Amino acid sequence: MNTLYHYPLSPYSRKVRLCLAEKKIEVGLVEERYWEQSPEFLRRNPAAKVPVLKMNGRIMSESTAICEYLEDVQPTPPLMPRDAEGRYEMRRLIGWFDDKFYHEVTSKLTGERVYRKVMGRGYPDSANVKAGARAIKFHLDYMAHLLENRRWLAGNDMTLADFAGAAHLSCLDYTSDVDWNRHEVVKDWYAKIKSRPAFRSLLADEVPGFQPAAHYADLDF
Amino acid sequence: MNTLYHYPLSPYSRKVRLCLAEKKIEVGLVEERYWEQSPEFLRRNPAAKVPVLKMNGRIMSESTAICEYLEDVQPTPPLMPRDAEGRYEMRRLIGWFDDKFYHEVTSKLTGERVYRKVMGRGYPDSANVKAGARAIKFHLDYMAHLLENRRWLAGNDMTLADFAGAAHLSCLDYTSDVDWNRHEVVKDWYAKIKSRPAFRSLLADEVPGFQPAAHYADLDF
Ligand SMILES: N[C@@H](CCC(=O)N[C@@H](CS)C(=O)NCC(=O)O)C(=O)O
Ligand SMILES: N[C@@H](CCC(=O)N[C@@H](CS)C(=O)NCC(=O)O)C(=O)O
Repeated sequence: MNTLYHYPLSPYSRKVRLCLAEKKIEVGLVEERYWEQSPEFLRRNPAAKVPVLKMNGRIMSESTAICEYLEDVQPTPPLMPRDAEGRYEMRRLIGWFDDKFYHEVTSKLTGERVYRKVMGRGYPDSANVKAGARAIKFHLDYMAHLLENRRWLAGNDMTLADFAGAAHLSCLDYTSDVDWNRHEVVKDWYAKIKSRPAFRSLLADEVPGFQPAAHYADLDF
Repeated sequence: MNTLYHYPLSPYSRKVRLCLAEKKIEVGLVEERYWEQSPEFLRRNPAAKVPVLKMNGRIMSESTAICEYLEDVQPTPPLMPRDAEGRYEMRRLIGWFDDKFYHEVTSKLTGERVYRKVMGRGYPDSANVKAGARAIKFHLDYMAHLLENRRWLAGNDMTLADFAGAAHLSCLDYTSDVDWNRHEVVKDWYAKIKSRPAFRSLLADEVPGFQPAAHYADLDF
């Protein structure tokens, strides 16, 4: 049995969950309160981060490396463009979401609202929340700019870049931090990806003490 | 003419410089004081980060996406393993260096010592420097653990993972933050990579106001 150690509102875990589900690779999900650094978890991943995937006896960390590996060993359905330019664009966007977008938006909104509390580290830092709320606007504008010329984020096919983006936005949506009215194209893109069977498990996530936004699991918003 | 917009002590820029040099792709280097956010630079990369590569008329950002692209379009010499397991391990390590290692070590040592000053943001935060000095020990131990069983970081061939690691360690070496006596295997690995022709341009870097460590450019330490 394959196991994914994850945390419900971890965008990196969600990217891997989407990839596994699209490729129909079955995994058991184990929720890992990684900040408690249980000795067992540290043994599995000395970096003490989620996600960690246990598959065929191997233990793997780093979400993008995991997704590329899954694509290598199970190429159908394809989640990467076949040409070098397309793959570059996909990887650029994954990097942009997982570095820039995460640090400027996800960690400052979902991070402050949920993580602080579940980790017992007090109240959200309002300067961070404000900065995140400002930054998400520019970043949604950038996504709209991309989607005005393409069907999916990295081109005309759905790729891992869409999963990276949807992983972050779905965490932010849980905490009601996305203004879906800002750009019709972004909303349409998200509705498309949210209605995929692979998304169901994300929509069923619950973090005790935090109600998701009313429309969080609603496929028509 | 290809151009790389970079900053001398940016580990992400250094990784790309090593990759370009190994593949013998000529580029002009343009030093970019990215924190000044010149309108021209922002036009090239809205993420306002270095490195940015201008190649054959395209403008590219995100260091790992760039390196994978270069490998795709110019496969010789190969800088990635050919098997899925090897590629996974390489990508995992690149992720580990560019996320975990950067945030816990490079940004807290080289970042505090050099960036603060060149950016005009005051003195190093000594709590950060202390945390970085503590963390680098564990991380060097981890590298030694890998290198005790392999010739290079991701396996028996040199890969982009070695460039990622050497990019960070060379920045830290500039600021005298690496205790090379801690592990013979790590020192040997670094000496091997440092003596490659591709490394020369890094060893010639100079940041005004900061002398590199005496042994920084010495191929025998
Ligand atoms: N580069 C890692 C990042 C994973 C990551 O940062 N996960 C967060 C949860 S969203 C975490 O475990 N943080 C713990 C820590 O940074 O110590 C990946 O892509 O898997
Ligand atoms: N994920 C990016 C990271 C690049 C990066 O963070 N570069 C630093 C310099 S070492 C930078 O430009 N920082 C500016 C910023 O974060 O705004 C990559 O791999 O290229």
